[in-house]
Amino acid sequence: MSIRVGIIGYGNLGKGVECAIKQNPDMELVAVFTRRAPESVKILTQTAEVVNIADIEKWTDKIDVAVICGGSATDLPTQTPEYSKLFNCIDSFDTHARIPEHFANVDKVCKDNDKVTIISIGWDPGLFSLNRLMGNVILPDGKDYTFWGKGVSQGHSDAVRRIAGVKNAKQYTIPVDAALEAVRNGENPELTTRQKHTRECFVVLEEGADAAQVEKEIVTMPNYFADYDTTVNFISEDEFNANHQGIPHGGFVMRSGKTGWNGETNHMIEYSLKLDSNPEFTASVLIAYARAAYRLAEKKDYGCKTIFDIAPALLAAQDGAELRAHLL
Amino acid sequence: MSIRVGIIGYGNLGKGVECAIKQNPDMELVAVFTRRAPESVKILTQTAEVVNIADIEKWTDKIDVAVICGGSATDLPTQTPEYSKLFNCIDSFDTHARIPEHFANVDKVCKDNDKVTIISIGWDPGLFSLNRLMGNVILPDGKDYTFWGKGVSQGHSDAVRRIAGVKNAKQYTIPVDAALEAVRNGENPELTTRQKHTRECFVVLEEGADAAQVEKEIVTMPNYFADYDTTVNFISEDEFNANHQGIPHGGFVMRSGKTGWNGETNHMIEYSLKLDSNPEFTASVLIAYARAAYRLAEKKDYGCKTIFDIAPALLAAQDGAELRAHLL
Repeated sequence: MSIRVGIIGYGNLGKGVECAIKQNPDMELVAVFTRRAPESVKILTQTAEVVNIADIEKWTDKIDVAVICGGSATDLPTQTPEYSKLFNCIDSFDTHARIPEHFANVDKVCKDNDKVTIISIGWDPGLFSLNRLMGNVILPDGKDYTFWGKGVSQGHSDAVRRIAGVKNAKQYTIPVDAALEAVRNGENPELTTRQKHTRECFVVLEEGADAAQVEKEIVTMPNYFADYDTTVNFISEDEFNANHQGIPHGGFVMRSGKTGWNGETNHMIEYSLKLDSNPEFTASVLIAYARAAYRLAEKKDYGCKTIFDIAPALLAAQDGAELRAHLL
Repeated sequence: MSIRVGIIGYGNLGKGVECAIKQNPDMELVAVFTRRAPESVKILTQTAEVVNIADIEKWTDKIDVAVICGGSATDLPTQTPEYSKLFNCIDSFDTHARIPEHFANVDKVCKDNDKVTIISIGWDPGLFSLNRLMGNVILPDGKDYTFWGKGVSQGHSDAVRRIAGVKNAKQYTIPVDAALEAVRNGENPELTTRQKHTRECFVVLEEGADAAQVEKEIVTMPNYFADYDTTVNFISEDEFNANHQGIPHGGFVMRSGKTGWNGETNHMIEYSLKLDSNPEFTASVLIAYARAAYRLAEKKDYGCKTIFDIAPALLAAQDGAELRAHLL
């Protein structure tokens, strides 16, 4: 029998989850829950239903795991505890500073309702966290580096779009090659914000907007751009539509460390992702962890979990003997 | 209270384990077990004892986890089942094809004796296996690539040393840059043995040996060299001692995969290690998993385990709340 999955929220991430389910024959999408009028939402899976979120309680016996595809700022802090009353859930909560609070809220609901919810799944937090942990436990005498990009920052793109005179905009975060190389060479550099990443903006102006003024507002914007070297490119709407519709991302987690009786031996661990679609890749990670949530619930190992709590074998459709024979 | 560790076998790997324990304040080396005369074995840890292996049964109440540092060919297949009767154990069994058999033997002993033994820990098998599994579960529609090096192959170095006229030799396995780049570019190449790695030998000849003959014997050696492009460098003993005493290694695990409803989106996951000392790094991985073995034994979750069965949080000295706050 397939693992029956529900998707809550059908934006880019929800669509990515739908596609990821198609790649996993032991899983089946049964319903997409939406705040919109269900008949206005067209999904790709012919065997699944689109359901108004108000009717979600009728689905508790028909869904094994719900993947919550809301945003971290306002949706997930309330949605994940709420839906963890009804289902085993997965979310991609990515506000690092608020994870402990979110964990506590979800853990209580899960334990009161015999559910398993795995939070903060994706690549950062998620796979990058896992690699930071592995680097730290294997090389305790060492230094961590995380670089992001090249990729689209939605938050920074939104910030540029809010400037008067900007019709459309996309912002790419780019790791500085020289910084990456210094880390790879084991130089253990202390890197400032400016030394680690540059920011590049592609901006379509409204007719008659003042380019110099827009550029100045971007590069001096506190928190978002002021601490970085930022390049602003003004382009036509046609060029924007032709070349800047994707949502690529990626990055690097590196651990440089020493072993030996007197710490005389150097090692470098590097993990990197190059993703043509951030939401589709994140969705693929969510679906692998949905399998783990289902299995933990079968074992009655209830509560809130993170990527740190999941034995890798729980992620795979194959059993332990098959994994040992083919992947170990 | 510290986790009390014993080391069985004190070669390069055993020494590496001793150094790794020093870097982990929640662990303590209590004894090194050896087949040699104990008084002939000098260890670095002043608070630990050197004990003849014949007396190991007297230590069952004084050791929480034993790290077995024997070889995979003849030592570990008998040692790990034998010592799993007495202790929770960790080994680095690396004969991939025989892992299922080794697992079955160890699992039976562990379950009969309420012990936890984690086998095949290190980087390949080990961290590379973990990354192969993660790549496969996240990108089920994809292709795996593993490259080794640049690093010393002990087996190949031994094979060269067995040739008549060779006084000393070291063999380096080197991944082919063009192959790595083709994989990184998402070309999904089908690579032959020869296209993936080259082999480079540094050889010190006995006086009067025939260099041309030695070179021919190396490059035509079946299984070891015949399928590779091999370079042979004849060097002086001084140069050998100055530049080829280390045991560096490393490699790359890559997963190239597609997502999207019709598999139209590309992604690349890359994991790489650059290790100045293969045994010291392997030892550091063993010690992190020794912590996990101790914790699983405390939970009475007995049996044989592999890296696939270990939740990452079990590897860290910190508790879950600390990990979530600082590493997630």
